[in-house]
Amino acid sequence: MNTKMIRYILAKMLGVEALLLLLPAFVSLLYRETEGIYFLIPAAVLTVIYLLAGRKKPKQAEIYGKEGMVVVASAWILWSMFGALPFTLSGCIPNYIDALFETVSGFTTTGSTILTDVEALPQGMLFWRSFTHWVGGMGVLVFVMVLTSFDKNSMVLMRAEVPGPEKDKLAPKMMTNARILYGMYLGLSIIQVVLLLFGGMNLFDSLIHTFGTAGTGGFSNYAVSVAYFDSAYIDGVITVFMILFGINFSLYYLLLLREFKPVWKNEELRTYLGIILASALIITVNINYIYGNPVTSFRYAIFQVASIITTTGFATANYVEWPWLSQTILMFLMVVGACASSTGGGIKVSRLIMAVKGIKREVMQLLHPKSVNIIRVNGKKVSGDVVRVVFVFLAAYALIFMLSVIVVSADNFDFTTTFSAVLTTIGNVGPGMELVGPLGSFAEFSPLSKLVFCFDMLAGRLEIFPFLLLFTVPFRRNKF
Amino acid sequence: MNTKMIRYILAKMLGVEALLLLLPAFVSLLYRETEGIYFLIPAAVLTVIYLLAGRKKPKQAEIYGKEGMVVVASAWILWSMFGALPFTLSGCIPNYIDALFETVSGFTTTGSTILTDVEALPQGMLFWRSFTHWVGGMGVLVFVMVLTSFDKNSMVLMRAEVPGPEKDKLAPKMMTNARILYGMYLGLSIIQVVLLLFGGMNLFDSLIHTFGTAGTGGFSNYAVSVAYFDSAYIDGVITVFMILFGINFSLYYLLLLREFKPVWKNEELRTYLGIILASALIITVNINYIYGNPVTSFRYAIFQVASIITTTGFATANYVEWPWLSQTILMFLMVVGACASSTGGGIKVSRLIMAVKGIKREVMQLLHPKSVNIIRVNGKKVSGDVVRVVFVFLAAYALIFMLSVIVVSADNFDFTTTFSAVLTTIGNVGPGMELVGPLGSFAEFSPLSKLVFCFDMLAGRLEIFPFLLLFTVPFRRNKF
Repeated sequence: MNTKMIRYILAKMLGVEALLLLLPAFVSLLYRETEGIYFLIPAAVLTVIYLLAGRKKPKQAEIYGKEGMVVVASAWILWSMFGALPFTLSGCIPNYIDALFETVSGFTTTGSTILTDVEALPQGMLFWRSFTHWVGGMGVLVFVMVLTSFDKNSMVLMRAEVPGPEKDKLAPKMMTNARILYGMYLGLSIIQVVLLLFGGMNLFDSLIHTFGTAGTGGFSNYAVSVAYFDSAYIDGVITVFMILFGINFSLYYLLLLREFKPVWKNEELRTYLGIILASALIITVNINYIYGNPVTSFRYAIFQVASIITTTGFATANYVEWPWLSQTILMFLMVVGACASSTGGGIKVSRLIMAVKGIKREVMQLLHPKSVNIIRVNGKKVSGDVVRVVFVFLAAYALIFMLSVIVVSADNFDFTTTFSAVLTTIGNVGPGMELVGPLGSFAEFSPLSKLVFCFDMLAGRLEIFPFLLLFTVPFRRNKF
Repeated sequence: MNTKMIRYILAKMLGVEALLLLLPAFVSLLYRETEGIYFLIPAAVLTVIYLLAGRKKPKQAEIYGKEGMVVVASAWILWSMFGALPFTLSGCIPNYIDALFETVSGFTTTGSTILTDVEALPQGMLFWRSFTHWVGGMGVLVFVMVLTSFDKNSMVLMRAEVPGPEKDKLAPKMMTNARILYGMYLGLSIIQVVLLLFGGMNLFDSLIHTFGTAGTGGFSNYAVSVAYFDSAYIDGVITVFMILFGINFSLYYLLLLREFKPVWKNEELRTYLGIILASALIITVNINYIYGNPVTSFRYAIFQVASIITTTGFATANYVEWPWLSQTILMFLMVVGACASSTGGGIKVSRLIMAVKGIKREVMQLLHPKSVNIIRVNGKKVSGDVVRVVFVFLAAYALIFMLSVIVVSADNFDFTTTFSAVLTTIGNVGPGMELVGPLGSFAEFSPLSKLVFCFDMLAGRLEIFPFLLLFTVPFRRNKF
């Protein structure tokens, strides 16, 4: 393990976080809030760390997959730990574990909150809270690489951070295009801000809700989330952009290259849109008795379906009052999640497709034992290794899920609350059902449960294996 | 597909069911119940079917894996469909779908019930209901083979019916020993009957509760289940025998051969007993405030843990009143289930072990990409094919589970009821939580949901793949 190089990269990363903290400090200044100082204190500490360990590159600069995973997992934990300081130092979230939960929820683009009165927060704090979504959306490391510079090591890091089952194939192509991808991310975000301004939102609210949409995070600065605006136009814009940010970003790149056919034929995209449409239609019928007309019902249904499957977590309705069929479909969507290589969480639609094809193959092999059934996605053969890792991933996801539910159940909340709280955090969605519904909060859970949720959010965002690895790397005596 | 042979075997199987139906008819006679006639009517129909199609063996008698699976899945469905007739004909369960649910629940050794007043049933009906557990416990086909005769085809059938991930290895050994296994099953059952009689139970109750224990079924003839007897001795006997019937039966064979070391070192057995002990201890602490002393608390905890992990489903306490930690652990045990090649359901402890080892291997391969990590169970290498099928099985189990929960949620029961109802049926356990707790019933669900539960019970008992196959075999024009 190249610990010197790990230390160097992490120190550099913390230096970037120091820069990021200047932005909310500036917002505080604009609003003449004294809390701005609490962004500058951790920024100063991070700068010192950077100056001490992040300036001189070690001679032996090569790192491999294993170091890459350790760096990525550690980076997310450290960014969250330092990013939580402004909340606690300012007294806005006095308990550090609560602040850590809120920051992990931000960076992992989950959007679950321990705040019971979000509207009481100063503007600077609200900005920082939502800005972590936007940064976390594309991956903190990819973000840093775009800001600093690429080298041979970048690809190693990227493999550990970019979501989806087929990173090996995507990574080389994405490497050369990472800046373009981030450019598109920025571009889509700007379009959304403009469209929201056009709908009558002020600039601050537009930024907050664009950060939440682009990162598929879901923090709002209003207690009732997007329902605050009560506007079909704003609901529509956010619905469309949530769906857009849940699509594999490499498809946008193909669109830029004017390659329309592979986008049109993309199985993951078709399945993703099909699931959204089918779920929204069933829910529309199921909730129509509440809203009285199909158009309004569809408006709320499609918004919530888009919000949950993309793992954003905004709400325009208190869906915990909907019938259980609708709620159960939403919980199923929490598991499914968005497309691979998007900013969304969950197991990803592509893994669901591969799992279904893998199950089908197993049944077909019972019928024709001697046939060799190959799994194809988008007409291309998927290697046996990728398929194997997909299934192991799913089992690991389920196992971490079940063990987390057991630990959190010690808090003795009703089962639906506990179950959906774990489901929504490991899927990086945000709200759950019952007490953790769109109007609820995670405030009442024990500190142990909150740490379990932090673990689940990070494990979900980093797709489990890099995160599990961190706990299996033997403790070393080397200075670190 | 050798349809002639399939028809021949199925007709033979139905002939055996005709014989089985004579037993409850005899019980009815003993108790001077007129309902006995309703066992004889379907028995007569089944005899006719046997005489028409089950006497002359087709010339081309060879069958293969595919036919084996179709036969097994069809046999279970047909036995349940005919086995349900006495309930409906007699008017004891007027609705045929309810009767089908009850019979599927019986044969699959689930033990979920749609009866709201079980004690109102005539003795003959109660006997038949519980006797299906005992027959289903070791597999209806194995049962028939023991009664009739073995041939080359038997092994093909057995592979499809015996639970556990490594059937290929077990089957040849088990083939030669199937009669011995059934002998041990009978022997253990007789010992349990005697021990229960010794505790003051009458013969009828002893038989009913032994059928429920041996088959890991869980039907009782009392509304409050085993709590009716309120006896620490009876609780103890049933606890021990539930645990015994959840152990891999080939280990008993090894004991008969005086091979103690492989039994003592058996990983699945150790894990199984470890999970039971750990769960019982945590629950004891968790529920101690209810019962006031640790001994009583442990008595209820160990009974319930043994009942749920072995997927029996008896109850000595209304555990839905326990704190959620205890209830959540019980739900986790519903997933885990008993050991492979036992009469219990669930995913089986051995699959859990392989899944955990498979996840660990994946993480280790990230650390040391070039190492070849082999999965070993009991010191022996497990083939890659077996591991692959385990993971695909788990994904299929999870997928069927999730889709079932969505369909059943349309009934709009609270989520915990719906969730645990599906969990307990696919795991062949019996009771669930909330409305389907040990004092509850499945009566209120819609007919569609009841059919979904029947599907889940059969899919769970037949370990999914043979059952899925049945729905993929193309419809044929051949006479059948």
